[in-house]
Amino acid sequence: MASYTFPPVDAVSPHEREDGTLLAPRFDAAGLVTAVTVDHLSGEVLMVAHLDAEALSLTLETGYAHYYSRSRKGIWKKGETSGELQRVVEIRADCDQDAFVLRVEQLGHGAACHTGRRSCFYRHVEQADGEARLSAPDMPPLFDPRAVYKS
Amino acid sequence: MASYTFPPVDAVSPHEREDGTLLAPRFDAAGLVTAVTVDHLSGEVLMVAHLDAEALSLTLETGYAHYYSRSRKGIWKKGETSGELQRVVEIRADCDQDAFVLRVEQLGHGAACHTGRRSCFYRHVEQADGEARLSAPDMPPLFDPRAVYKS
Repeated sequence: MASYTFPPVDAVSPHEREDGTLLAPRFDAAGLVTAVTVDHLSGEVLMVAHLDAEALSLTLETGYAHYYSRSRKGIWKKGETSGELQRVVEIRADCDQDAFVLRVEQLGHGAACHTGRRSCFYRHVEQADGEARLSAPDMPPLFDPRAVYKS
Repeated sequence: MASYTFPPVDAVSPHEREDGTLLAPRFDAAGLVTAVTVDHLSGEVLMVAHLDAEALSLTLETGYAHYYSRSRKGIWKKGETSGELQRVVEIRADCDQDAFVLRVEQLGHGAACHTGRRSCFYRHVEQADGEARLSAPDMPPLFDPRAVYKS
């Protein structure tokens, strides 16, 4: 398997980054870019996470989504504990390469969210009388997180 | 128009944030959450940006997408210069409320990206011989950014 490296952020001009074919992620001060993971068929947003250079390289190498966990401060192979692996079908870069869309086939129960739901975005904002609240979850759980994440 | 305020980040328990109906964005140290803006019909990811409390409040108040520009260090009403306004159809919150999906009707030319394209994600990663590069843009420009952003 190949290991991927990326040019130093300052070594790439804005023009080259936006218009060129060089994969030159614009990692932030913490060394991260944003990952938006979507279902490869429906396009639905499943989750938002972060990639460091190693997570992006591992994702490219293995074809399975790896992220950088800010809470655990380390690489996180999605589904390693839960079985909810994500097979990457396509990676897309945004204009300034600080965000990437991962189009994935969600394996396991088809639940990207640690709450057991298809997507992390299981609530919408409801506005009434000048107040904004969240709806009750509008997606059912596909697995029981208490059984999967025994802690 | 109502002005919206949000509870202090530390005032809300993880359980309440994930399972409740309280809109309690988990702003990071810089006061930001991630916004993923998608087309309200197709679900296609158009752009990724950031919201601070004011931008989220203005978006809720006005029904038009406002973001926080990290480069300009201020509120940015999307489309104010370009005319590419975004009418917000729905806002969805993720499990831990540090990311929000804005489902929008993209107005103007229908171009969310400052390069004039429908989406900022106009290139995909191509892998060959252990190398990863970006494709040429696979979406046409819908306006000429040089004519729109006279600087």
